[in-house]
Amino acid sequence: MTAPFVIIGGDAAGMSAAAKIKRERPESHVIVYERSPHISYSACGMPYWIAGIVDSDRKLIVMTPEIARKRRGIDVRIHHEVTAIDPAAKTVHGTDLATGATFTQEYAKLLIATGARAVRPPIPGLDLPGVFTLRSLTDAQAIHAYMATHPVRQAVVIGGGYVGVEMVEALHDRGAAVHLVELQPQIMPNFDPEMVEPIVEHLLEKGVTLHTGAAVTAITARDGGLAVELQDRAPLDADLVIVAVGVRPNSELAVAAGLATTVAGAIRVDTAMRTSAPDIYAAGDCVAHPHLVLEELVYIPLATSANKGGRVAGEVMLGEPSRLPGILGTAVVKVFDYTLATTGLTETAARTSGRWGKQGDWVGSAVIENPDKVGYWPGAETLKVKLVFDKRDGRVLGGQLAGKAGVNKRIDIIATAITARMTLGDIALLDLSYAPPYSPTYDPIQICANVGQRDVLGEPASV
Amino acid sequence: MTAPFVIIGGDAAGMSAAAKIKRERPESHVIVYERSPHISYSACGMPYWIAGIVDSDRKLIVMTPEIARKRRGIDVRIHHEVTAIDPAAKTVHGTDLATGATFTQEYAKLLIATGARAVRPPIPGLDLPGVFTLRSLTDAQAIHAYMATHPVRQAVVIGGGYVGVEMVEALHDRGAAVHLVELQPQIMPNFDPEMVEPIVEHLLEKGVTLHTGAAVTAITARDGGLAVELQDRAPLDADLVIVAVGVRPNSELAVAAGLATTVAGAIRVDTAMRTSAPDIYAAGDCVAHPHLVLEELVYIPLATSANKGGRVAGEVMLGEPSRLPGILGTAVVKVFDYTLATTGLTETAARTSGRWGKQGDWVGSAVIENPDKVGYWPGAETLKVKLVFDKRDGRVLGGQLAGKAGVNKRIDIIATAITARMTLGDIALLDLSYAPPYSPTYDPIQICANVGQRDVLGEPASV
Repeated sequence: MTAPFVIIGGDAAGMSAAAKIKRERPESHVIVYERSPHISYSACGMPYWIAGIVDSDRKLIVMTPEIARKRRGIDVRIHHEVTAIDPAAKTVHGTDLATGATFTQEYAKLLIATGARAVRPPIPGLDLPGVFTLRSLTDAQAIHAYMATHPVRQAVVIGGGYVGVEMVEALHDRGAAVHLVELQPQIMPNFDPEMVEPIVEHLLEKGVTLHTGAAVTAITARDGGLAVELQDRAPLDADLVIVAVGVRPNSELAVAAGLATTVAGAIRVDTAMRTSAPDIYAAGDCVAHPHLVLEELVYIPLATSANKGGRVAGEVMLGEPSRLPGILGTAVVKVFDYTLATTGLTETAARTSGRWGKQGDWVGSAVIENPDKVGYWPGAETLKVKLVFDKRDGRVLGGQLAGKAGVNKRIDIIATAITARMTLGDIALLDLSYAPPYSPTYDPIQICANVGQRDVLGEPASV
Repeated sequence: MTAPFVIIGGDAAGMSAAAKIKRERPESHVIVYERSPHISYSACGMPYWIAGIVDSDRKLIVMTPEIARKRRGIDVRIHHEVTAIDPAAKTVHGTDLATGATFTQEYAKLLIATGARAVRPPIPGLDLPGVFTLRSLTDAQAIHAYMATHPVRQAVVIGGGYVGVEMVEALHDRGAAVHLVELQPQIMPNFDPEMVEPIVEHLLEKGVTLHTGAAVTAITARDGGLAVELQDRAPLDADLVIVAVGVRPNSELAVAAGLATTVAGAIRVDTAMRTSAPDIYAAGDCVAHPHLVLEELVYIPLATSANKGGRVAGEVMLGEPSRLPGILGTAVVKVFDYTLATTGLTETAARTSGRWGKQGDWVGSAVIENPDKVGYWPGAETLKVKLVFDKRDGRVLGGQLAGKAGVNKRIDIIATAITARMTLGDIALLDLSYAPPYSPTYDPIQICANVGQRDVLGEPASV
């Protein structure tokens, strides 16, 4: 009897790999260890369940352990925590959390898909009732249950990244007055400042109070509620506090097994999702992927790359020559009526990388505002487009969009162009779709590319 | 004194070239001859003015002759018809239609941007009052004026292409019962049959009567109205008839001057927009462009390529090394609540081209239906995606989308991927954006690419 495929972690990456293996080789034995009660759920949908837009948390569950076992033939073991990997013996050790029994399991190939956890900043008060992070479905259920029994008139969200702004909107939708506290001078750090400006304005319009450059020193219980204490500023009263200051890879198991990790603590993998140890693969929010523009490993945990990385890992574990060439960190986020999207490098990231001149001298950028449809179309909205490029040859390094309409899927044109290593000139001449209800004749991305080309040295890149 | 740049035709291509030349070399003299009273207007917007969505035809005018002269310094001469080109003498001959005076003008470089005209099929009755083609702003104004004085209870649209279906919707919006008559067995010939099915169903839902495979034999005046006579079918009463059976390039001037044209009568140009005669360029709806997938000249007149071709022509006329590599015929069309979009080759076109096996043996296709957003998002709509590919290596040849949401700009991801000569495997691993309000985790295009990969022979193309 051959040893099974073993997967640690039953969310996007782990279950993608498991499903792929069983689909291609139905007779194989695939064990998935998951320490929580849930596998395969839409973490990205959780703010919308809390907001009341999605009416049941059951809708967020992509697959139950029962379905995975019965329909897919995947040996899913929930409440099972793997505590150690022994690469030499090709075994994993763990505990059945339901019974306390320990187990040892041999593997033929092992996939580490342990995901990430919410960062808990070193401030007092994180364990007070009413203070939550939002990472797992269990977290979301705790917030939802708390709000069912505690009226939330005022809420404080700490951290202005994707989850933070989505929770600001969710809590506003639920009727709370919301304060957003961000340590950095700018919310949405994956965007350049001028792209965040319209979003900040929009948040203020919606009645959200922003506190940027604000350091939280403690969360305290006060008057039957909570207070978020700020350095050099008045404390904020709150009935609910969400701490959303980022995530950290769950790589302790990998580190203990001697696997290579990055400075950020993410597991190093190559394009075949192989770790530094033979027969051990890793995928999802615990790994660093090669960045297609930076050409080095970066830690940008997103559901999209977790799914694709898991799938590729499953194929490679079966001996197929699949590869995930890399990622761009392409992301889109809804902020009330606005949509903000990014792909590749921001201007800030490109400049500070040192790859385009020590001071970022070769980094060019263009920003335009244009109606998202023909200007005469009723309800055409202003779309802001930024392209970041290499001034020497016009090669596009990144793109960002912000607007009330027309953002969705437009960012993916830029992502596809960057993947193909296109220049501004190439983008300007793409044969993109046009009809008055949908777009101007020249897509705003192309208008931006044309503007950017003026700053490209030498011949236009489209030549 | 050097001879000026001369441009024949003052719409998208001609004015793009003129504007480009004046922007880059402001001291140059650029003469634009336009026989109509209008330059630079949005022909694509005309159905929406007739529908009442756009409230004035003035909004369709991008630039008036006065603005072009005063602000851009372009010597625009409306009501001027060029009647002959003498490539040897490098002159054009023409007539001032306002005065009847003839003129002869020398040129340094000449651009032919004479556009296209509506095909007038050889059936009696096309000149009856109430029968219109829709090509120029003058046509649109005539229809608009006619409808202001003649109640249109029933209308017949002949031809089920882009303009035809847009006019069906426009006339329906204006309260008419609309019949759409199409000679071919299928409306929307730029789409494969299964992509048109949901559109046909939707048109019927909206109360439009379809007559496919129906040959119009005559249009006659009857009972104070019109009748559209059909072969082997009962005639259709109509208060208004729109004839939208395609366009034909205005290439007579070019032909008379000895320039090379295609079988379809379009002017042959290379990627620098050069015709077969020295110092004569052509752009816009009168030319055939290289098709990026077919790699031969095709006649697909669209506003997008007219603008880009004109711009590139202007740059080349200035001595720059610009090139328009080719087109994909990317297009999007609104059909009531549906959107239909295409890029590259349909399966039908790929099969009949003979380039992928004599019987089209190497042409593969995949069609999927998937929610355009995460399935649990309220109001997620079914999106139909088709990809056409080369079975031997997975290279994508074309794509089509149909749905009530999520079509817009998604087609451009496929267009960009085709331009970069991507395979299904490449598309499946693109780092595309995802958030529940906007898209599933795997974009429907990627789901379709994954399905298609099963039919690719040999190794997956993403390897």
